[in-house]
Amino acid sequence: MYSLEELADRLSLAFSGDPARRLTGLATLDGAGPEDLAFLSNSKYQGRLATTRAGAVILHPDFVDQCPVDCLISEYPYVSFARVSHLFDRSPAATAGIHAAAVVAVDAEIHPGASIGPHAVVEAGATLGEGVVIGAGVYVGHRCRLGAGTRVFPNAVIYHDVHLGEHCTVHSQAVLGADGFGFAPGPDGWEKICQLGGVRIGDRVEIGACTTIDRGALDHTVIEDGAIIDNLVQVAHNCRIGKNTAIAGCTGLAGSTIIGANCTLAGGVGVVGHVEICDNVHVTGMTMVTKSITEPGTYSSGTPMMTTKDWKRSAVRFGQLDAIQRRLAALEKSSQ
Amino acid sequence: MYSLEELADRLSLAFSGDPARRLTGLATLDGAGPEDLAFLSNSKYQGRLATTRAGAVILHPDFVDQCPVDCLISEYPYVSFARVSHLFDRSPAATAGIHAAAVVAVDAEIHPGASIGPHAVVEAGATLGEGVVIGAGVYVGHRCRLGAGTRVFPNAVIYHDVHLGEHCTVHSQAVLGADGFGFAPGPDGWEKICQLGGVRIGDRVEIGACTTIDRGALDHTVIEDGAIIDNLVQVAHNCRIGKNTAIAGCTGLAGSTIIGANCTLAGGVGVVGHVEICDNVHVTGMTMVTKSITEPGTYSSGTPMMTTKDWKRSAVRFGQLDAIQRRLAALEKSSQ
Amino acid sequence: MYSLEELADRLSLAFSGDPARRLTGLATLDGAGPEDLAFLSNSKYQGRLATTRAGAVILHPDFVDQCPVDCLISEYPYVSFARVSHLFDRSPAATAGIHAAAVVAVDAEIHPGASIGPHAVVEAGATLGEGVVIGAGVYVGHRCRLGAGTRVFPNAVIYHDVHLGEHCTVHSQAVLGADGFGFAPGPDGWEKICQLGGVRIGDRVEIGACTTIDRGALDHTVIEDGAIIDNLVQVAHNCRIGKNTAIAGCTGLAGSTIIGANCTLAGGVGVVGHVEICDNVHVTGMTMVTKSITEPGTYSSGTPMMTTKDWKRSAVRFGQLDAIQRRLAALEKSSQ
Repeated sequence: MYSLEELADRLSLAFSGDPARRLTGLATLDGAGPEDLAFLSNSKYQGRLATTRAGAVILHPDFVDQCPVDCLISEYPYVSFARVSHLFDRSPAATAGIHAAAVVAVDAEIHPGASIGPHAVVEAGATLGEGVVIGAGVYVGHRCRLGAGTRVFPNAVIYHDVHLGEHCTVHSQAVLGADGFGFAPGPDGWEKICQLGGVRIGDRVEIGACTTIDRGALDHTVIEDGAIIDNLVQVAHNCRIGKNTAIAGCTGLAGSTIIGANCTLAGGVGVVGHVEICDNVHVTGMTMVTKSITEPGTYSSGTPMMTTKDWKRSAVRFGQLDAIQRRLAALEKSSQ
Repeated sequence: MYSLEELADRLSLAFSGDPARRLTGLATLDGAGPEDLAFLSNSKYQGRLATTRAGAVILHPDFVDQCPVDCLISEYPYVSFARVSHLFDRSPAATAGIHAAAVVAVDAEIHPGASIGPHAVVEAGATLGEGVVIGAGVYVGHRCRLGAGTRVFPNAVIYHDVHLGEHCTVHSQAVLGADGFGFAPGPDGWEKICQLGGVRIGDRVEIGACTTIDRGALDHTVIEDGAIIDNLVQVAHNCRIGKNTAIAGCTGLAGSTIIGANCTLAGGVGVVGHVEICDNVHVTGMTMVTKSITEPGTYSSGTPMMTTKDWKRSAVRFGQLDAIQRRLAALEKSSQ
Repeated sequence: MYSLEELADRLSLAFSGDPARRLTGLATLDGAGPEDLAFLSNSKYQGRLATTRAGAVILHPDFVDQCPVDCLISEYPYVSFARVSHLFDRSPAATAGIHAAAVVAVDAEIHPGASIGPHAVVEAGATLGEGVVIGAGVYVGHRCRLGAGTRVFPNAVIYHDVHLGEHCTVHSQAVLGADGFGFAPGPDGWEKICQLGGVRIGDRVEIGACTTIDRGALDHTVIEDGAIIDNLVQVAHNCRIGKNTAIAGCTGLAGSTIIGANCTLAGGVGVVGHVEICDNVHVTGMTMVTKSITEPGTYSSGTPMMTTKDWKRSAVRFGQLDAIQRRLAALEKSSQ
C-alpha cells in the first residue's frame, strides 16, 4: 500500500490530487477500482480516461486536464508504469545463503549475499556475485560466472564455461551452453564436433522459459547488454545478438546469425544461418529471414490467413505463378 | 488381463462372442494378435476388419455383422477405446506421502492422499488437494493451489500464485507462471514490467512437455476446463483459452490472445497479440493468424510444399504479384 | 597441448612441417594464432589459407602446396577436424559412481562404471550400462534401459519404458516418453487415450535441449541409429525417424510421421501427421510438409522475405490469385 505522494516521491514525478490517496494495486483504466493506480500510455486508449474508476492514473502532462481522477504526471507514462510495477510485485524474495539441500563445490566462489535454493548444484570453479539468486534445482556448470544481481529460476540449466553479466534474469527450463548442432558428415554417418566455445551474456539480459542458447563451436555465442529474449527461442551456436534487441517467443536463429542492436523479432520468426541483420530492423511474426538485411526497416514474409476453402485455391495458383506470368507476357507481346 | 465379459462390464457395453475370451493388450486392427483388443472408429479402415487377427474389436453396431471375431459394441467406439486404454496402462502408480528427499514448507497444506516425489519443492502457502501427484524435481511456488487428482510430471515448474483445478495433467519441463514478456522502451533500453497477474487453469486441462504458460501482466492468464495443450506451445501473458479447445505442438500465442471454446489449432500455428478467435474455429498447421476470427470455420495460410527448384520460381513471382496484377489490368483495359 | 606429430599419430594422418610444433587450441583460419590448429574443408574459404596465422592447418592433399604453414593432410578434413575437436574439449568428465544425493531404486541395475549425479532419480527396473552418465537432477523412469556410453545432461526427463541404445547424448530439459497427444472427442469433451507404447532409440543418437519425443499410443515411437536432433524439436507419438537423419531446431513432426534415412530437415519445418518421407530427402527451413514425399530431392514452401510495405501488396494479391488466373484465362480466350 502506498499513498499518492509516496509514489510520486519514489518515481520522482509530479502529481495532482489528494497526497494521502491510498493505492493498493495496479490495473488497466477499464479494470481499475478506487484503490488502483492505472496508466495511459497509448493515446488510442484516451477515451477510456473519462470513465475510469481508478484512484489515480499515470499519464503524460498533455492529458492532465482530461483526467477525472488524481494523477501522476510523467513524460514517459509507460516507463513510469514499468517502474511502479516493481513496488506492487508479490514475487517471493530469496534469502541469502546456501540451502542445506543444495550441492555446491568446495572451490566455487559464492558471494555471502548470494542465495542458492534446495537441490541446486553449483560445480567447481563457478563464481556467483552479490545478490545472485539460484532457484531450486538449477544446475550451474564448471567455471560459470554470474554477475551481481543475476537471478536464475528453478530447474534452469547452465552448462560449463558460460558467463552472465549483472542483473540478468534466466527463467525456468532455459538451457544456456548446450552443444551447438555441429556434426561432420563422415563415411559412416555424422561425426560430432565438440563445441569448444562458451556463451557470453552481457548485463540486464532476460532469457525466457524453455529458451536454448547453444555454446559456440570455436568462438563464443554472444548476447549483448540489455537484450531480451522470450520463451521457447532457439539461439544456435555462434550467434551474436546486439544490444537492446528483443526476440519474441518461438523464434529460431540458425548458427552464426548476427543481429544488430535495437532490433525486434516478433514471434515464430526463423533466420537461416550465417546471415547478418543490421541495427534497427523489425521483423514481423513468422517471417522466414533467408538473407542478410542491410537497411533498417520492417520486413515480412508469409501469406495472409484466409478460409481454408479460399486458401486452397490461392495455394494451387501459387504453384502456377511462373506459368501465369509467362502466359501474361505472351499476351502482352501479342497485343502490342 | 481381462475377459471379454469383464471389459464389457467395465465399459457398460454389449458384446458378442466368447465371454471368457482372454484379452491382454490393445492393438490396431492390422497389428493385433489373438489376445489383443482392437477398435474400428473410422469407416476408412473398415476394410481391415475382414482380415484382423484380433481377439476382439470395439466397433459401432453397424459393423457387427461384418466382424469376423468377437466384439464390444459401442455407439462411440473411439471413446470406448479411450476408456479401455486406462485399463491397460503400465504407468507406474504414485504412493501417497512426502518423499524424504522433498523440501516442503511447513505451512503448505498437503492433503494426506497427495504424493510428493524426491527433490520436489513445495513453497509456503501452497495447497495440494487429494490425490495430487507431484513428480520428482517439480517446483511448486508460493501460494499455488492444485486441485484434487492433478498430476505434475518430473521437473515441471510452477511459479508462485498459479492455480490449477482438478484432474489436470502437467508434463515434464512445462513452465506455468513465468513472467510475461512485458517491457517498456525507456531512454536507456527496455524497462521490465513486473508481471503481477497469475495463471488460472480449470479442471481436466492437459499441458504438454516444455510448454510455457506465462503469468498475466495485471490480470490472470486463463485456461478453461477441458482445454488440451500439446508440447512446446507458448501461451503469452493474459491469453484466455476456452473450454475444450485443443492446441497442437509448437504453436505460439502472443499476448492477450482470446480463443473461444471447442476450437482446434493444429501444430506450428502463430497468433498475433490482442486478437479474438470465436468458438468452433479450426486453424490448420503453421497458419499465421493475423487478425480476429469472428465466424466458425476452418482457416489457413502458407504455401504448398514443392520441389525447391519449382518453389524458387513461384517465390520470385510472389514478389512480383502486384506488378503482375497491374500488367493484367492494363491488358484488360487495352483489350476492351 | 599436443605436438603436430602427436596429432598426426592420433588421427592417423600424414603431416608436413615441424613434428614438435606445439598446438594448444582449435580456431578458424582467420582467427587462429601460431599455437592454433585450423582447418580448410570448404574450397570457398581457400583464399583465407594464404594469410592464415595458424600454427598448422588440416586440409585436403590438393591444398598442401598452397599452405603457408604446417599441415595435417586428410582426405576428409572436416571429419578429421571433428575427431580432433574431442582432444581439445574442456567439458568436465564425470566420475563413476552414484552421488550421495541421488535417489536410485534398489532394483535398478546400475553398471559400476556408470555415473549418477546429485538429485538424479532412477526408478525401479531401470538398467544403466557401462559408462552411462546421468547428470544432476535427471529423472529416469521405471524399466528404462540406457546402453553403454549414453550421456544424459542435467534435468532431462525420461518417462517409463523408454530404451536408448549406446553412445547417445540427451541434452538438458529434453523429455523422452511423455504422453502422445491422443484424445477422443467424447460427448462431454476430450477423453484421454492412455499412451501405451514406449520410445525406442538406437545407437549414437543425439537429442537436443528442450526437445520432446512422445511415447507411442499403441506401438513405439522409434528413432534409428545415428539420427541427430537439434533443440526444441517436437516428435509426436508413433513417429519413426530413419538412420542418420538430421533434424534442425524448432521443427515439429505430427503423429505417425515416417521419415527415411539420410534425410535433413532444416529449422522450423512442420510435417503433418501420417505422411511418409522417403530416404535422402532434404527439406528447407520453415517448410510446411503437407503430403508424403516419394522422390529423393529438396523441397520447400513459404514466401521470400520482403520489406513489409512490398509484402503487404503481394499478400493482398495472393488472396486474389484465383481471380487473377481467371481474368488471365478470359483475356487469352478473347485474344484468340
